[in-house]
Amino acid sequence: MSLKMTAEEIMEFLAEEFPQVTGEFTIEELDEMRARVRLHVGERHLRPGGTVSGPALFALADVAVYMAVLGMIGPKALAVTTNCSIDFMRKPAARTDLIAQCRLLKLGRVLAVGEVLVFSEGGDQPVARASLTYSIPPKD
Amino acid sequence: MSLKMTAEEIMEFLAEEFPQVTGEFTIEELDEMRARVRLHVGERHLRPGGTVSGPALFALADVAVYMAVLGMIGPKALAVTTNCSIDFMRKPAARTDLIAQCRLLKLGRVLAVGEVLVFSEGGDQPVARASLTYSIPPKD
Amino acid sequence: MSLKMTAEEIMEFLAEEFPQVTGEFTIEELDEMRARVRLHVGERHLRPGGTVSGPALFALADVAVYMAVLGMIGPKALAVTTNCSIDFMRKPAARTDLIAQCRLLKLGRVLAVGEVLVFSEGGDQPVARASLTYSIPPKD
Amino acid sequence: MSLKMTAEEIMEFLAEEFPQVTGEFTIEELDEMRARVRLHVGERHLRPGGTVSGPALFALADVAVYMAVLGMIGPKALAVTTNCSIDFMRKPAARTDLIAQCRLLKLGRVLAVGEVLVFSEGGDQPVARASLTYSIPPKD
Repeated sequence: MSLKMTAEEIMEFLAEEFPQVTGEFTIEELDEMRARVRLHVGERHLRPGGTVSGPALFALADVAVYMAVLGMIGPKALAVTTNCSIDFMRKPAARTDLIAQCRLLKLGRVLAVGEVLVFSEGGDQPVARASLTYSIPPKD
Repeated sequence: MSLKMTAEEIMEFLAEEFPQVTGEFTIEELDEMRARVRLHVGERHLRPGGTVSGPALFALADVAVYMAVLGMIGPKALAVTTNCSIDFMRKPAARTDLIAQCRLLKLGRVLAVGEVLVFSEGGDQPVARASLTYSIPPKD
Repeated sequence: MSLKMTAEEIMEFLAEEFPQVTGEFTIEELDEMRARVRLHVGERHLRPGGTVSGPALFALADVAVYMAVLGMIGPKALAVTTNCSIDFMRKPAARTDLIAQCRLLKLGRVLAVGEVLVFSEGGDQPVARASLTYSIPPKD
Repeated sequence: MSLKMTAEEIMEFLAEEFPQVTGEFTIEELDEMRARVRLHVGERHLRPGGTVSGPALFALADVAVYMAVLGMIGPKALAVTTNCSIDFMRKPAARTDLIAQCRLLKLGRVLAVGEVLVFSEGGDQPVARASLTYSIPPKD
């Protein structure tokens, strides 16, 4: 297996297909079955006290698995999340970017499974853990 | 057990404590261990084709359980989500509000567990199912 | 939609295909997209104090969704669980049968999603909640 | 942090407190926040074709996190699983022991979160992935 898209191509694809999230996420590293993705934390992601909201953490985990899948299967806008389990374990550091480390555990014909650890930048204890299943569109 | 807050009080509490989400969610019905909550779908919740994004669905499920918990325990900003499992089952109808039906299955001293079904308004098939655990702050 | 198998046919199918679990589970009611299933609690399901073990609760939730799926699609031994999320909420009553109430929320071409509440017989508070995804084998 | 119990002490504790599972599981390695645990696969764990059942995989993941928690907090029979999310990703090899690699991601005052990958012995692709939350009994 080798990568079907580069990190740059994934960023361009995302900007075209999902303009709503432009500027929120950057893929910092892409490898076979792996991706590291940054959430650029802004006002809209925050809760009182400056901590990042649960939905923003979810969105980061979700996009990280999506990017890792795209790297392996190429530009398929129609890959969709079917399931996510997420544990919120620690309070993210205030007003600090979040980094998701994603690893695909399975890339099947129909389903992909990825796991994600999310860290506050510079922190060594995960603030959240997530596992997600993506449904892969049939080959056309 | 009886309700510690009314739907109106919960909306006021949310507006004060979580101004970031003001206008997004309305609690439409509150009962013991239950809440029905609307997501007012706007541009920021959409994906290409007009469908509601996964993070918006997550946010709705999360806030619905939070509101049901607040109804039972009173205004505690510090109740936090510790775990969520969510299944995305159908594509939401385009540009249509979403309705979450939440039921608390457990309200313990330390943990609360709620389950949520999310429907596109007017639809009778759930677009998503979620279960969430909240950590309840100790009595002070 | 109508049922493709009766409760009796499902019990016979299970006895043939999964002889290991014979006598453990009985389907008590089968309806469209629904099943009620009993775990006949025996020594092997118990933990100290007489409470039912987590794996036995998981097995009950799993078989309940399987039976509800079989009712809808007919005898397919190859339907397999791909994901389960389970919350253990209360201690089951000692040495008491467990009853699973299962409802299918989605029955797609490729995936089925079911949710389950488990009660100690005679109890009105659920001891566990589970949601499971089954992968449906392609039509042959 | 250092270990409060050795692997041997955990095996003795399990044999006393959970005699039902004696002989099923062996802890092969114990380290801070980590455990590697073997399921000795026998007839009762099998499904047709010789593959290991879902409940047996669940039981292995559950006991692996329990052992890792015991290593860190000492002999507390009352630590209980409150939530598990498990993905079944590949068919286990026929009649082959399973190995669980567990890592605790959080060990709080009230809750512990562990993640587990399960492999067929000698295999390099995980057959299952699980994350579990344990409720820690208060200090006495």
